[in-house]
Parts: sequence; structure tokens; C-alpha cells
Amino acid sequence: MLEPTRVGLIGYGYWGPNLARNFHQLPQANLVAIADLDAKRLEEPARLYHARTYTDYRELLADLTLDAIAISTPARTHFEIASAALEHGKHVLVEKPLAVSSDEARQLIALAERKGRVLMTGHTFEHNPAVWKMRELVQQRAIGDVYYIYANRVNLGRVQRDINALWSIAPHDISILLYVLGAMPLDVSARGATYISEKVEDVVFVTLTFPNKILAHVHASWLDPSKTRQMTIVGSEKMIVYDDVDAEAKLRIYDKGVYKHGSAFGESQLKIHSGDIYIPKIDMSEPLRNECAHFIECVRDNKCPRTDGENGLRVVRVLEAAQASLACQGKVIRIE
Amino acid sequence: MLEPTRVGLIGYGYWGPNLARNFHQLPQANLVAIADLDAKRLEEPARLYHARTYTDYRELLADLTLDAIAISTPARTHFEIASAALEHGKHVLVEKPLAVSSDEARQLIALAERKGRVLMTGHTFEHNPAVWKMRELVQQRAIGDVYYIYANRVNLGRVQRDINALWSIAPHDISILLYVLGAMPLDVSARGATYISEKVEDVVFVTLTFPNKILAHVHASWLDPSKTRQMTIVGSEKMIVYDDVDAEAKLRIYDKGVYKHGSAFGESQLKIHSGDIYIPKIDMSEPLRNECAHFIECVRDNKCPRTDGENGLRVVRVLEAAQASLACQGKVIRIE
Amino acid sequence: MLEPTRVGLIGYGYWGPNLARNFHQLPQANLVAIADLDAKRLEEPARLYHARTYTDYRELLADLTLDAIAISTPARTHFEIASAALEHGKHVLVEKPLAVSSDEARQLIALAERKGRVLMTGHTFEHNPAVWKMRELVQQRAIGDVYYIYANRVNLGRVQRDINALWSIAPHDISILLYVLGAMPLDVSARGATYISEKVEDVVFVTLTFPNKILAHVHASWLDPSKTRQMTIVGSEKMIVYDDVDAEAKLRIYDKGVYKHGSAFGESQLKIHSGDIYIPKIDMSEPLRNECAHFIECVRDNKCPRTDGENGLRVVRVLEAAQASLACQGKVIRIE
Amino acid sequence: MLEPTRVGLIGYGYWGPNLARNFHQLPQANLVAIADLDAKRLEEPARLYHARTYTDYRELLADLTLDAIAISTPARTHFEIASAALEHGKHVLVEKPLAVSSDEARQLIALAERKGRVLMTGHTFEHNPAVWKMRELVQQRAIGDVYYIYANRVNLGRVQRDINALWSIAPHDISILLYVLGAMPLDVSARGATYISEKVEDVVFVTLTFPNKILAHVHASWLDPSKTRQMTIVGSEKMIVYDDVDAEAKLRIYDKGVYKHGSAFGESQLKIHSGDIYIPKIDMSEPLRNECAHFIECVRDNKCPRTDGENGLRVVRVLEAAQASLACQGKVIRIE
Repeated sequence: MLEPTRVGLIGYGYWGPNLARNFHQLPQANLVAIADLDAKRLEEPARLYHARTYTDYRELLADLTLDAIAISTPARTHFEIASAALEHGKHVLVEKPLAVSSDEARQLIALAERKGRVLMTGHTFEHNPAVWKMRELVQQRAIGDVYYIYANRVNLGRVQRDINALWSIAPHDISILLYVLGAMPLDVSARGATYISEKVEDVVFVTLTFPNKILAHVHASWLDPSKTRQMTIVGSEKMIVYDDVDAEAKLRIYDKGVYKHGSAFGESQLKIHSGDIYIPKIDMSEPLRNECAHFIECVRDNKCPRTDGENGLRVVRVLEAAQASLACQGKVIRIE
Repeated sequence: MLEPTRVGLIGYGYWGPNLARNFHQLPQANLVAIADLDAKRLEEPARLYHARTYTDYRELLADLTLDAIAISTPARTHFEIASAALEHGKHVLVEKPLAVSSDEARQLIALAERKGRVLMTGHTFEHNPAVWKMRELVQQRAIGDVYYIYANRVNLGRVQRDINALWSIAPHDISILLYVLGAMPLDVSARGATYISEKVEDVVFVTLTFPNKILAHVHASWLDPSKTRQMTIVGSEKMIVYDDVDAEAKLRIYDKGVYKHGSAFGESQLKIHSGDIYIPKIDMSEPLRNECAHFIECVRDNKCPRTDGENGLRVVRVLEAAQASLACQGKVIRIE
Repeated sequence: MLEPTRVGLIGYGYWGPNLARNFHQLPQANLVAIADLDAKRLEEPARLYHARTYTDYRELLADLTLDAIAISTPARTHFEIASAALEHGKHVLVEKPLAVSSDEARQLIALAERKGRVLMTGHTFEHNPAVWKMRELVQQRAIGDVYYIYANRVNLGRVQRDINALWSIAPHDISILLYVLGAMPLDVSARGATYISEKVEDVVFVTLTFPNKILAHVHASWLDPSKTRQMTIVGSEKMIVYDDVDAEAKLRIYDKGVYKHGSAFGESQLKIHSGDIYIPKIDMSEPLRNECAHFIECVRDNKCPRTDGENGLRVVRVLEAAQASLACQGKVIRIE
Repeated sequence: MLEPTRVGLIGYGYWGPNLARNFHQLPQANLVAIADLDAKRLEEPARLYHARTYTDYRELLADLTLDAIAISTPARTHFEIASAALEHGKHVLVEKPLAVSSDEARQLIALAERKGRVLMTGHTFEHNPAVWKMRELVQQRAIGDVYYIYANRVNLGRVQRDINALWSIAPHDISILLYVLGAMPLDVSARGATYISEKVEDVVFVTLTFPNKILAHVHASWLDPSKTRQMTIVGSEKMIVYDDVDAEAKLRIYDKGVYKHGSAFGESQLKIHSGDIYIPKIDMSEPLRNECAHFIECVRDNKCPRTDGENGLRVVRVLEAAQASLACQGKVIRIE
């Protein structure tokens, strides 16, 4: 059996502790080093995981025994830190968004290729069994034609100062949409508003058009009384509600639809069909654990991750276009 | 005591039976005549209410003993029928939307004034005790500054062929927004998509900007697996969730907010406050009954209805602007 | 086509208005007379239904044109009034419980037989499509062996002074249990407590043993914050939750169970199986309307009702035994 | 600052991992040794916590550097293992139930006293902030007189072979009842049934009478489709629903009640009051973490635990009486 992969973690703020816990629990990984600017925050992981700690990530990267680096720092620093890690010959997992511009994302992809290292984006929901099931239902056309999709991801959560709700929250839904539909949107528009800070949108509404007239809509906000993580897919024959917060019924498949019937006088007749509801049993594995295990597996077997750099780039391209729309009062922006 | 007001109902399709039932139950009203194009549909109310029935609404209007007319016909016919009723000197209640253009709405208002008759719009939700409570909380600033509001009104419901989801479903939310905020929006944008019919949007997303940077968003669709009628008002100090489908908790008031604190170095600090939830007892009277009773009261006491013609016009103006935006891929349309 | 059956209603208190509304709406019935001790209460139905009204039920029974009588008076008066109605040659529908003793119930059955008239008990839930579906699932063994069943029927509802929660609320669940299982219980025990009145239990817990070791438990109370009407059937292979208050999911069928496996050392091994959930589409017809229509149908076609006198007697026998147990601190009472 | 308390854990089956995780995370504790009969199961904690592992708990107890022992082994072994630990001079935390007879429990209490060591029972729910709040509301009479309480603790969970649902599940509710009411029950009765094993009840219904006519009822089962952990306290002025599974609303306080009014003719009149609902913000700390921290605190400061041996004994006495009732078909058993 192989030695466990030696993992270093950079960024122990909001999300880092979850990555640390998961890497610590994986038998095939060893979390040996953690870096964060805040020395105080490093006391806990030092005690819990017996990991070496650094306040300068460059010192961590200098550790020649480390195989792989996970990065959960503020989005604006992803490019610099991921570049440095790749330059040091490390395999890299970057939290979403991969970078804050498609330019940066492309450079990271190129660098990873040149160095022959794994570059993975932390799009957790693509490692979520409920999302796998949705993709399967959509791709196998079990719900007929997809009409439209809408997602709500709101909470009274972390109000960020450096990136807005579009870049902070919406990447999850955009990554799910691209994955489930297996396509890029043709265009995107977005409107939002700033309340807490002057320049950072606390709430955004994003509308995307996909091929085949599929409309998608994402509502993201960190100013909302209740934690909601819901996506509804309306198909011509069935409809799916994915509620990530519901422990018993993550996916509900409604055998409901509206059918068109041909009619004598050129006008079609409509019939609404309202049927059974089916809640498939979904494997309850923690998506982040799946993500971490997949990263380690790609590192060890030299495989391309499901959520690779290109995957991260696609989401960044959509975010970039949505940001451009946000700046122009919701003007529709084409995505090439 | 006065004789009961003699009421005629025009339109016994989807909504008409509800109006009939309510007018029948009101002691101060007498439902004496019902018209519908479909003679078959008139059998039931003839039996239940001992009402005279007509397949031509003009014959009904010719009945000189009728004091008041309620109209629940397709939206495109509102103007013609309401005009005729007013010309016959009847008091008129028109289902929402008041008309399909602001021009029509203005003509109805002028005609009602000339004839000295009551013209009321059937914006049911402004006769809903839960909405009254929301308005009170907002107007008394009990939730601090209003930041943003979003509404979901979706269902697998009546797919209409003559008007889209914007004109059919969204009037409810627009009327609530105008009523609760006590203001007209500055601008509106809307995107939607057509699936069942080629020219009728089955789903629309409407974004409105109100004074004081208040953003509002309405999602309306008749292609959705679950009946949802929800509105969330996010304020600086408290947040309200209004769920019209929840029997026990129509309104939830969250003592939650994000506070800015001044700070030494010019940068404000944030504190998220997550507190108690309070579910006020709401009078369970049926809003439509309130609406019908209010109409009869206005007729008898010659009062101006809470949801008068001007009120109906305001909603039509917003719908018109939203329709213009829909036609231009979501371009922001100013409302004068 | 036959003339509509002429129906008289005795008792216009809490439940009577529901019977009145349903008989009024049935095309094959004519609600022509209503009696209640309270003349004031009769004003409303006189206006709504153009029914003749009486404060003495004997006058109503003297109306020779009446074919059938529905009785929704206090339970203690059922025997006297139903007897009188049968003596007058009327068909009779009696609200649950049929009578307050098995003796009375047996006399009513005998009288109806002698007079050749329909005697039906108003066990509404046996006219409920969701309950039909449960019975079908149980009787076809689609859930394997039935292990145990428990029901909660609580509310902050009508606090009665003449009968306790056992006789007022639990008849519903007992009627459902007998119907779904197709069997009488072998024994019953009950405990309860009195808070509001000294002699009337506000809350009761009833435990019943059915053949095949099936245990059933009923919790009935009118002192409870939330309206709950739930029954859970635990089977060896599947489990059913019936929630009468849930509009979307009246029945949930859980593909869950505990399996025993043979094992080498005489000790069986257990495996818990946790699977899909299935929510069948249930016909949304109003159970009380089904009940009223069924009564009229039995009257017109001279058929024996699904919930006939014998059915009512069986429930009364269980209630009687439970009452005896209640008086002996929960002693188990055999049912012959 | 003191050295962290050195903790050994005996039993790493279903619950042990939760204790291990919590002791590991507490800064003031050091989880240094873990024992379990199954060597295979010990691999994980050895890796995660760098703890020494033993398959014989006696070897663990022989470690002189250990200050305190947590025991999460099958209930029947609690007495033997806790006795041995106390004999070795260790402070002891025993999972509920403290022992399988009051005799054993009393011996443990006496031994702990003789040895001058802390003996704590793992009644987690008495370390739960929601339960603290309920006790406060009840003890301060904020809900008026307590009328009755009922609890549902069901799940498709661990089917046990050595102890029944009474001893395995109901201790939680009994401990909550005793704690919230601050009193012992006067008597108890219980009925149950066995399905999976011949001698082990899978489901039990327990009825308890407390002073002041307070009735309590507990339904415990491991054969149920949905995880439910609910307790309802009905008071004369307010009612509380405690739902441990609800993340947003652990406690709901209903401003509802039934009032008696004096009346002229000796008969009181009733008025049902249905009011607001209030959901207090509850501290979200993990109860088990509170419990572990409290144990360490008692060990270090030589304090008597909130859930001490006497507390554990009281629950065992109720369980013993309930078991006796179970054996006699629900006969009411007095508790001295």
C-alpha cells in the first residue's frame, strides 16, 4: 500500500476547517501543514491535527515533503497562491471560484499542464450524490425536455467585503447548472443591490439562457432570514425539487407536466397532469469528503479531476459575464 | 335596515365561483344574476344560488334592479364589460388586472367618476389581514430600513392562452409591493420564457427598483411542481417571511439583521444579529370575503374603495412597463 | 331522472353546517329542512339554503315529504333522535359515534332493519380516498406484515362538556383502524386526564391489541397547540405515514424495513433497509361530500352503506371497553 | 494553567465516536486511551486521535496517568466497568442508563462517594440549551399550570438485541421530564410489543403521573420511518413544542390556552385563546460537547455534576417500574 499523500492547507478561515477535518479523516491522506495569516487561528488545528503551522504560506510551500496543497483563502489571492504552489511542483485544489478572472484561470490551467500537476476546483456540489442523480435524470431525459430551472441560495451568512454575493455564493449554482445541463449558457444578465458595503452586492438575481430555450435563474444573497439551498428543474414531463437542507427528501421528483394535444382547428389543447411524487434514496456521503477523496485519488493515480481547471474556468467565464451585466443594469451579455 | 345590495356576476369560469360563493354568503348582498358564455357552466350556480342566468352579459346589465356588478372574465374583456356596466349606472368590481393597458384603465376611472359610481379592482391580497400586518410593520419602520423584497408565486396551475404569467399571476405581488411600500417603483425589468404556447410567457422574473434603493423581485410561473406563495422582506433590523400557504404561520418576523459599526480606521465592522422569531396571530378571515364585503360597503356608503381604479391603474402601469422590458430582453424601463 | 332526495338536517351546531353545505351542493339531494334548538343559529341556513327551519326536531320529522334525515346533534341525543326518525320511516345518517352505548347502537340497528330503512354512521374517514389507499396497501400486504400503528389527533379545538376526548375525537381513529385492518381489536386499555372539567377527559391515550400481535395506539386531545391528524403504519417491509393536514403529501410510503436473516449460530442478524419514499397521487374529493353522496346513493338504490349500523356498533363497542379501562386506571379490557 | 485532564474512553461502538470527537476537541481534555472489544474498530481512533488502544478495558484502567473514564458500552456492562473504574480511583462518566437496576445504580453511587470520585450520568439532554429553556419556562410558571406532556422519540434506528426500546430510547425523555418538572412521577404504566426479537420490545408507550395531576406520555420506538424527537408541554396559559430535529425552531411557545370563567349558574364557561407563537433564539452549542465540558469541569473543580449518580438512579427507578408494568400488561406501578 502507498504512503498517505502529504497535504498542506493554506487558509484556515471560514471554510478551511472543513477541508482540514476531511483531509484528516481520509486514510489515504495526511494533513501535515497548515498556513494562515492569523497565528491565533492556527492554535486549534495544531492541537487537533498535530499539523505544522505557518503564518507565511511560502514557508509551507517550501516543504519538499508535501505532495498536494488545498487553498481556501480569499478569492482574490487564489491566483497568486495557486501559481506559487504549482511552481513548487505541488498538486493543487483551489476553492471556488478558481480565480477572479478568466485570464487568471487560463494561466493556472496552462501552468498546471506545463508542470504536469493536478489542478482541481472546489466545486463541492459536483461531488454531491443528489446532484449526480439530478444530472442523470436530466441527461437521460427522464423528465422530458427541460423547460426552466431556478435556484435559491440565501442565508443570513457571511457578509463579505472583498467579493460580492455573485462571486461568493452563485458559483455553486452556476457549477451545478453547467454540470446538470452539460452545456454553457448562451447569455447571462444580472441585477443586484448593495446595502451593507457601498461596492459589494449583497443580493444578486442572475438569469441565464441555455441552448434549447432553457432558462435558468439564480437568486443569491447573504441577507436572508432562513437558510435556503433549493433548485427546481421544470421539465415537460416531470419536475425535480432539490432541497439540500432537507435531510429526508433531498430530491423530490414530481410526476407532473403540461401536455399539448393536437386539435382539429389548429389550436392545441392543454392538459395538466398532476401525479405521484417520488423521493429517491440518496447516498448520504458528505460531498466535501467525496471532493477531498477525489482530489487525493487524482493525485495518486494521475487522473484528471471531475472538476478540473477547465471546469473552474467555465464557471469564472459565466461569473465574469454576469458581473459585466451587473455593471450595466442587467444588460444581456453574450457568452462566446 | 337597508335591503341587501343586488349583485350580478359576469364570468363564472375559474374565479367566478369564488366570488359567487362569497356574495351569496354576505348578509348585506344578494347574488341575483350570473352571466357566462357557457350555458352548461351556469347550471350549478342556478341550482346553488337560485340566481337568474344569462349567456349574454348585456342582458344581465339590462336588469334595472341590479346595483352592482362583479366581473371575472378574461382580462382582455375587462374594459369592454366594465365600461358597459358603468354606462348602465352600475357599481363595478373588476378582477385583477383592471385592464390590459393603462389607457383602458384611465378611461374606466374617468367613466366611473363621470357616472358617480364605485370602481373597484379585485386586488384580493390588499384585503388580506397578513398583508395589512406587513404594511403596518414596514410603514412603522418596525423592521428598520427595507433593503430588498422577493416574492415567489408559482404553481402547476391554469396555463393561460390569452395573457402571460406576468399579467395573470404577477399582479398580486405587484399590488402587494405597492401597498406595503406605499410607493411606485422607479423602474422595472423582466425576463421570461415561453414553453407551452409560442407567444405567452409561462414564467417571468421581474425586478423592480423602488425609492431608497429598495430592490424587489417577483418570480411568477404556472409551470411549477408546488404551490408557493411567499414573500420575504429583508430589513436592516428585522426580516419578514409571508407564506400564504402556511396555515399556522402566515407571517414570521425574524429578529435578525446585519449591523454596521463605526471603526477606528475608516472601515466599518459588521455584526450579524440572529435572534428570536415571532409569529403574530393573524385574523383568519377569508380575504375574498373581506374584498366582497368592502365592495358592498363602498357601494352602500358611497365610499372610495381601498383598491380603487387608481390603485388598479398603478398596477397596470407597472405591468405595462414590465411587458415592454420583456419584449427587449430585460431592458430596464423607467416608470414616469 | 329521479327527483332529488329530500333531506332534513337535525343539529346545526359545529358540524351541521358542513353537512348542510354538502347536501346543498349534491345535485341528487335537496336540503329542505333544518332543525336546531337555537333559533338564532337557524337564520344563516335559512338564508343560504332556503330551507325550512325548526327549533323542535319532532316537527321536522313530521314532514311527510322528507326521505332522509342527517343527525349532527350531541352524542347523547343520537339514540332518541335517530329512533324517532326511523320510526317516522326516514332513512338516517347519524354522526359518529352512532350512540353512547352498544346497547343503544344495537337497538338502532334492529329498528332500521324492522323499518327497512338505511342506517348509516358518519365515519367520515372511511369515505376518504387516502384511507381507502391505506386499506388497499395493508390488505394487499404491500407493506409486508403490519407491526404497529399509532395515531395522533390533537388540536386546540372544541372542549366538550358532555363527552370526553375518547368519545369525541378517538372514534375517527378507531373507525380507521378497524377499516384498514379489517378486524376487531382483542383488547383495549386507556389512560387519560381531566383538566378543564372535573369529569371529562381532555386527553386520552388508547392502546389496542389486534390479532397477529398488531399493536395500535391513539392519542386524542383537544388541548394541543397544533392541529395534527396523523397515522403511521409500521410494516415489516414498508411504512406508511398518513398526514391528513398535508395538502401535497397525504400519504408517504417509505420503502424501509428491518429484515431478519438466518445465521449460523441460531441468532438472527438484522439489516435495516432505508429506501425510497413514494407519495401517491390521492384523489382530492372532500370526504364529507363522498359520505353524503354515498348516503343518498344508498337511500336511492336501497343499498347497505359502507359505514352501516354494524360498523357504527363496532366502534361503539371499542369505545365502551376503552371507557371501562379509563375508569380502572388503564386496566386491559377484553373485547368479546 | 492546569494540564489537560487525561481521559480514557471505554466502548467505541455507536456512541463512543461522538464522545471521542468531543473530548478530543476540548482544550482542557486529552483523549489518550480508547478500549473496545473489536480491534478493527480501534484503527480509526488510533489514527485520528493518536490515542493508545486496548481490547481489554482492564488494561486501560491500569494506566495510572488517566484521570477520568467515559463509558459507552452496552448498558448491561455499565455496572461492572464503572465499578472497576471507580475502584481504580478514576472519575467516571457513564452513558445512559447509568445501570440496568436501581440496585446497581445505588452501589455505584456509594462506591463513588467512598472513593471521593465524580460519578456522572450521560443524560445528554440535560445539557441541551433548549431543555434548559423549557425548564426555566415551566419552573417560572410562564406557561401557567402544566397540564400534560407528551414525547415522541422514534426513528428507524439501531435495533438493539440486549435492551429494549424502553431502556435504550426512553431514558432521554424520562430524564427530560424529571428535570423540567423538578419532580419524580407518582406512578408509571407501560405497554409495548416485540417484533424483531422475541423478548425485546421494539416499541413502548409509557404513561407517567406526576404530582398536581400532570400526565406525561412517552412513545419510544426504533421501528419508525422518520426521525422524530418531539416533546409538547401543554400548560393552562401557554404551550411549548420542543422539536430537537428542527434547526430553526427548536422551541415554539404558543400563546394559547383554555380559560375557565365563573358563571352564574354554577357552570363555568370556557374560552379558547389562540394567540401568537414565539420562537426564542436558542444557543446552538452541541449538547454532548456541553456534557463533556461539564464532566471535565466537575473533575477539575471537584464539583457535583448536574447529572450525577442520584440523577441517573432516579431515571433507572422509573425505568424499572415501567419495565414491571410492561411485564403486567400495563398495570400501574407506584413509585415510592
